[in-house]
Amino acid sequence: MEITLKEVAQILSAEIDGDENCVISGLAGIDRAGPGDITFVANPKYTQYIATTKASAIVCASDTVAEGKNLLKVENPYLAYAKALRFLNPAPPETGTIDPNAVIADDVRMGDNVTVYPFAYIGEGCRLGDNVTVYPHCFIGKNVSLGDGTVVHPNVTIGDRCKIGKRVIIHAGSVIGSDGFGFARDGAAYYKIPQLGIVQIDDDVEIGAGNTIDRAAMERTWIKRGTKTDNLVHIAHNVIIGEDCCVVAQTGISGSTKIGDRVIMGGQSATVGHIAIGNDVKVAARAGVSADVPEGQIVSGAPHMPHMQWLRMTRTLPKLPQMNRTLGQLTKRIEALENELRQHQEKCST
Amino acid sequence: MEITLKEVAQILSAEIDGDENCVISGLAGIDRAGPGDITFVANPKYTQYIATTKASAIVCASDTVAEGKNLLKVENPYLAYAKALRFLNPAPPETGTIDPNAVIADDVRMGDNVTVYPFAYIGEGCRLGDNVTVYPHCFIGKNVSLGDGTVVHPNVTIGDRCKIGKRVIIHAGSVIGSDGFGFARDGAAYYKIPQLGIVQIDDDVEIGAGNTIDRAAMERTWIKRGTKTDNLVHIAHNVIIGEDCCVVAQTGISGSTKIGDRVIMGGQSATVGHIAIGNDVKVAARAGVSADVPEGQIVSGAPHMPHMQWLRMTRTLPKLPQMNRTLGQLTKRIEALENELRQHQEKCST
Amino acid sequence: MEITLKEVAQILSAEIDGDENCVISGLAGIDRAGPGDITFVANPKYTQYIATTKASAIVCASDTVAEGKNLLKVENPYLAYAKALRFLNPAPPETGTIDPNAVIADDVRMGDNVTVYPFAYIGEGCRLGDNVTVYPHCFIGKNVSLGDGTVVHPNVTIGDRCKIGKRVIIHAGSVIGSDGFGFARDGAAYYKIPQLGIVQIDDDVEIGAGNTIDRAAMERTWIKRGTKTDNLVHIAHNVIIGEDCCVVAQTGISGSTKIGDRVIMGGQSATVGHIAIGNDVKVAARAGVSADVPEGQIVSGAPHMPHMQWLRMTRTLPKLPQMNRTLGQLTKRIEALENELRQHQEKCST
Repeated sequence: MEITLKEVAQILSAEIDGDENCVISGLAGIDRAGPGDITFVANPKYTQYIATTKASAIVCASDTVAEGKNLLKVENPYLAYAKALRFLNPAPPETGTIDPNAVIADDVRMGDNVTVYPFAYIGEGCRLGDNVTVYPHCFIGKNVSLGDGTVVHPNVTIGDRCKIGKRVIIHAGSVIGSDGFGFARDGAAYYKIPQLGIVQIDDDVEIGAGNTIDRAAMERTWIKRGTKTDNLVHIAHNVIIGEDCCVVAQTGISGSTKIGDRVIMGGQSATVGHIAIGNDVKVAARAGVSADVPEGQIVSGAPHMPHMQWLRMTRTLPKLPQMNRTLGQLTKRIEALENELRQHQEKCST
Repeated sequence: MEITLKEVAQILSAEIDGDENCVISGLAGIDRAGPGDITFVANPKYTQYIATTKASAIVCASDTVAEGKNLLKVENPYLAYAKALRFLNPAPPETGTIDPNAVIADDVRMGDNVTVYPFAYIGEGCRLGDNVTVYPHCFIGKNVSLGDGTVVHPNVTIGDRCKIGKRVIIHAGSVIGSDGFGFARDGAAYYKIPQLGIVQIDDDVEIGAGNTIDRAAMERTWIKRGTKTDNLVHIAHNVIIGEDCCVVAQTGISGSTKIGDRVIMGGQSATVGHIAIGNDVKVAARAGVSADVPEGQIVSGAPHMPHMQWLRMTRTLPKLPQMNRTLGQLTKRIEALENELRQHQEKCST
Repeated sequence: MEITLKEVAQILSAEIDGDENCVISGLAGIDRAGPGDITFVANPKYTQYIATTKASAIVCASDTVAEGKNLLKVENPYLAYAKALRFLNPAPPETGTIDPNAVIADDVRMGDNVTVYPFAYIGEGCRLGDNVTVYPHCFIGKNVSLGDGTVVHPNVTIGDRCKIGKRVIIHAGSVIGSDGFGFARDGAAYYKIPQLGIVQIDDDVEIGAGNTIDRAAMERTWIKRGTKTDNLVHIAHNVIIGEDCCVVAQTGISGSTKIGDRVIMGGQSATVGHIAIGNDVKVAARAGVSADVPEGQIVSGAPHMPHMQWLRMTRTLPKLPQMNRTLGQLTKRIEALENELRQHQEKCST
């Protein structure tokens, strides 16, 4: 693809400082870029390469100065990099056809340009919006809705009645709408509580590979607009996750926990059930959140504590054996002092 | 569905205190229930709503007193709630048909009323009991047995020769009978040890979504009657899990470990291999069990310790940096005391 | 299968001490073996059974002495056991046929003796080597290569352009080549960075069940020759894992981390991103590696520390509450001493 710098500037909402007619045909790292390439400086430590790069144009922060270079000045060069990368490497278009080797119930309603691959199974009463893609070996149960532009990767299971929004991406092997883990004790045995609710996933959510998201006991397990989950994440029944959250790999959210907007859950982190985590909370990797967390806090450890406290604690931890030995020594020295002082006092009083 | 209170009482083995001819048509929470609904008080904090609820009948503990209300008195109201929920919301019946888009070996033997969905694969020599359901994209290897009433959800893999009991539920994406992780060192390289055993899952077990349960090296990996696993649980080769256990999400059980009956493994917990965990043990969430645990204990932490000890320990942990500073200060005060006492003694002796 | 001891000796590169014409028909544990069986002593605690076993032959260490027994002396009896086990229990041969219920793009090139099961999907431009097996419900995207002898178990997803070497085993439900978890912030929202790289898996790698291995943002996520992963392992984009590593179940490796050769990652362990772990490092179960680890180290804990330090630390941890109480007592005793000494000094000076 060939495109002028002027056109790139429009896509990136960038200000041009240089030759707007310069032709761009590729994208490369600043130390590898050649003529025709556009490159990026998102990290200040690469600023040094601006003078020597062979790239035809450089996307950079607004305050960058570089004589004789074609600059595209933007507020957020990393975001501009992502946008240009997507523009210059568009995903190959889907076929927009329904493969005859798929099994689709008669009453399924579909929008325009839907692609269904071989061996997909789509149950009764489903509704697929425009530009939906369903890959091989997906199971879409009864009365499921998939919004416009949603992509369901191979080997995904979506249970009955789940509601999936627009432009949602569900990666391979994930399970949406399995039964919540709910049982009543019947003597020693467990009696299964029917899980009658659904999973609702709102627009622009991306679900990683190998996730398991359980349906609610009643009502819904709900993942709100723009949230992204990494791989092997477990989300239990009746959990609510707010907008624009980021849930890193192998995290587990226990039942009925409510997570606010813009929360980051680090890798292998977890929460107990029935708690509330406020907006903009950051939960560190491997943290185990054991109680409500107010808005904006950064927490670490299991049970969790403020991150700064955890940092100090973990720095002290390796000293623990030495501390214990010191305690023993101090105890002896104090005993010795007590004895000596007593003897001295006795001696003085005689 | 409409049903009289008398009929409900029979299903729940409840004692009626009120009008046995009252008609029930639904189930709702005590603060939302209306005429025709049955409701429940399983938690004492909801007892206050008994006087004001509009429900037609209330399932409650045997000692409940409420003038002018229709009560169904039971020993375990939460269990009665689960039973009524299941009775009033029966799962839609399966078709009882074998879809022509499934691939089933010629010699597979099936009981009555078996449902096999499109794209299921069932290998040679398999035996399916009555009322078995196999969802799309399930792989059932050779010589597998599935007992009466067992349900295998979509995208499940069950390897050759595994034995699955009656009324077992296996949720989507789980893998039963993958090879155990067994290798012999051959210099720096690993030489694969063939995994010749099976997985045996007994009656009334429920396996969550995305589980991986490895076949034994020899003999069997064995999950006994009534045990329930949550999502993304890993069970290694030759593990034995007793009856009526509860294994919460993302737990990992290492090879050859034996777990007793009625054991609870908390979320993200783990055990090392080749240990024995006694009956009725409770392993807290995130605990790492590193040695045998005797019957009835509650353990937490990694390496594990008695839960009460762990609670005290974790309450002290955040004080660790302060403790370290205090130790330094005490050391100085003791030095000062030692010096001062020595000087004083010298002064006295002169 | 019947085979002479001489033939067994050739397979195992063993030295015979006894009757080389003795006929072997099975393999059993030393305490259960009978006539016709070959048995093994890999662990010194079983040496005591050599005199009394009824086995026809015993594989043992080179320095073993046993009058009147047929011995096969080898350097590594456990490895010999694994080899004999595999020889005496060969995997049943695959059909070497392409099932008509598979969907395979027209231009896929295949070697000799390839087996493709029903409901496998193989996209355009794929190349399968000799003796490859693809089980039901596998999705193989476009332009994927699978080397000679590779086996892909059921319900596996392999994304476009991934390169899988020879004799690779991928267990059921694993996902190779899902998108890396990469986003640029766009205000509060996340903007998806296209993941344009691939996953490359080299010869003799074994991937456990339910793994998720993300494709690189650019270039490749790379798992080198001979490495084995257990179940439910997560490997993020641009990770490089060296040769002959062993990654135990439920481990997570964060993006761009480089792991050397012969590294062992214990169960449920993890690393942060962008670090380097040297050759021959051992990471204990549940460890969280938070920074580079030099060659040959053994590390535990989260954040990680040298294993011996961690052992001492965890032995002290349960004493922490007592240490805190002791600190309080010592503080009081020191105060008391200080007061008493001051009073004594005052008394002396009067």
